[in-house]
Amino acid sequence: MSKSFDIAVIGATGTVGATLVQLLEERDFPLANLHLLASSESAGQSLPFRGKNVRVRTVEEFDFSQVRLAFFAASEQVTRVHAPRAQAAGCSLIDLSGALPVSQAPRVVPEANAQILKTLQAPYQLTSPSASAAALAVVLAPLQALLTLRRVGVTACLAVSSQGREGVADLARQTTELLNMRPLETRFFDRQIAFNLLAQVGQADESGYTVVERRLSTELKQVLALPELKVAATCVQAPVFFGDSLSVSLECAAEVDLAAVRAALEGAPGVELVEADDYPTAVGDAVGQDVVYVGRVRAGLDDAAELNLWIASDNVRKGAALNAAQLGELLIKHYL
Amino acid sequence: MSKSFDIAVIGATGTVGATLVQLLEERDFPLANLHLLASSESAGQSLPFRGKNVRVRTVEEFDFSQVRLAFFAASEQVTRVHAPRAQAAGCSLIDLSGALPVSQAPRVVPEANAQILKTLQAPYQLTSPSASAAALAVVLAPLQALLTLRRVGVTACLAVSSQGREGVADLARQTTELLNMRPLETRFFDRQIAFNLLAQVGQADESGYTVVERRLSTELKQVLALPELKVAATCVQAPVFFGDSLSVSLECAAEVDLAAVRAALEGAPGVELVEADDYPTAVGDAVGQDVVYVGRVRAGLDDAAELNLWIASDNVRKGAALNAAQLGELLIKHYL
Repeated sequence: MSKSFDIAVIGATGTVGATLVQLLEERDFPLANLHLLASSESAGQSLPFRGKNVRVRTVEEFDFSQVRLAFFAASEQVTRVHAPRAQAAGCSLIDLSGALPVSQAPRVVPEANAQILKTLQAPYQLTSPSASAAALAVVLAPLQALLTLRRVGVTACLAVSSQGREGVADLARQTTELLNMRPLETRFFDRQIAFNLLAQVGQADESGYTVVERRLSTELKQVLALPELKVAATCVQAPVFFGDSLSVSLECAAEVDLAAVRAALEGAPGVELVEADDYPTAVGDAVGQDVVYVGRVRAGLDDAAELNLWIASDNVRKGAALNAAQLGELLIKHYL
Repeated sequence: MSKSFDIAVIGATGTVGATLVQLLEERDFPLANLHLLASSESAGQSLPFRGKNVRVRTVEEFDFSQVRLAFFAASEQVTRVHAPRAQAAGCSLIDLSGALPVSQAPRVVPEANAQILKTLQAPYQLTSPSASAAALAVVLAPLQALLTLRRVGVTACLAVSSQGREGVADLARQTTELLNMRPLETRFFDRQIAFNLLAQVGQADESGYTVVERRLSTELKQVLALPELKVAATCVQAPVFFGDSLSVSLECAAEVDLAAVRAALEGAPGVELVEADDYPTAVGDAVGQDVVYVGRVRAGLDDAAELNLWIASDNVRKGAALNAAQLGELLIKHYL
């Protein structure tokens, strides 16, 4: 890539933002100047980038006409307030918060629906989907030529890092207290997460679903371009620091050819198939890796048109920062 | 109950066996003399029962004609060897290992299919199903009058106590080592279970399924008397000491009436429905309790004939020892 532009990262001090900055350096992302931004609370800190310390400034005062591309890795609220300013300044953006509607900022996973970029115009507004939608899309996209998907049942066991640093700190604190036989005090999580599973991540709406479950369903259908797909989504909080684990059950229109499924997964970009008496796990395999791991590939016990899978993925990397960085690279290479 | 008989518990020193002995005392189980048995390795220990210490003897030398009912809470192997001896001696038995085929020792959950006992003859041979099958059957049985079930998708996150005391000890050891920044040594579990999820519990067969998954599927269909039901089962090892958590997605023949489902669950024996901005968890709700907890009752996002649920249950009690004790009570009251 010969082009490079000035770039901004909003939410640079959060778990995902900091990983994104690290990935921009690791991947030698084509950028000239990097602007690190955050809310006024976190501004003033510095992050290392290419051998220098870059000071984090407040997003409120930032002039988006200085950059060609901005990554929004902060809260939905920050995206809602500042994305229109970026757009008005002609700055393309990649949002990780999910705040923008699909119609305005389509969800894109490079391995699954990069072609959608051709239908858009600058300034681009893209959304990097939720971690579990991204992982699932990477695995299902290469199967679309083989299978007609009718329904996706998914139980996504999310790492506490999906709640940022506070989630990570609270699991560590709770675990230590319990191992030291101290009575449990609840702080960030409203009940015991250590050595337990929480049935729900965040508040449920009237119909009983949480934001992450609705996001997973909507985003998966949009990325796979399957608006009629039925998605049964349950997102659970697991006592795991990093790495999401997804138990997936697919219903297809016809009998599943397992050998063809394995061959498609073996050859798919961004996918690592683990089989032969082994299976992938979040910790040990996926965490720190750019690829999405898949294993336990098996047909239904009672239904030859059913396919069951286990997916493990780094929720901070492929689920967020890496996917966003890849989108940025695509935009710069072909579109900006 | 006025009748009482001499009873044997085989595998009395294991997690489930010891809990069963405790429950027999708590529930004032109608028994005269209790014989505690185990393999020769564990024989010689004593367990408290009704204010006395009862010595655990070896099962190999036990004369089953001394007892009217025996609980087999040991390994499949122990059941295979000694169940025929019990039967030959006219002793009824309740097996918890799953070693006996359905045709020979039907799976029974009192809340779901107690009526099957009427079709059997003494000496009775019953199986108390696997923990996840029992929990699921307790919740689905009261819904059968309302729903025509087509498919049950279940991801069962099993506690390490499903592996007995070694599983519990190894999760504690691994967690402590990791929190103390010591490198992880694997012992009972062949990889990191602390702060991780293992996609598989035990070895998988050629088709990719494990024994616990096949057991869950077979037992659920038999207990619900739905041989045509499609079951998509995934059993996962969670870093939880006690209490199984099940994410369940049901496909029904017609639109689900959520109000009727809730009413049926509210009134169902052995079920506790947790709703209204709350949800049940294994630790905190289910562990130590006799009832099975259910929550997150919601229709499908894309399919009104889909019903999603979350179930939390004590795998050692309702999943094993309690269900077996209840079966014993039924047998003694009505059949022996």
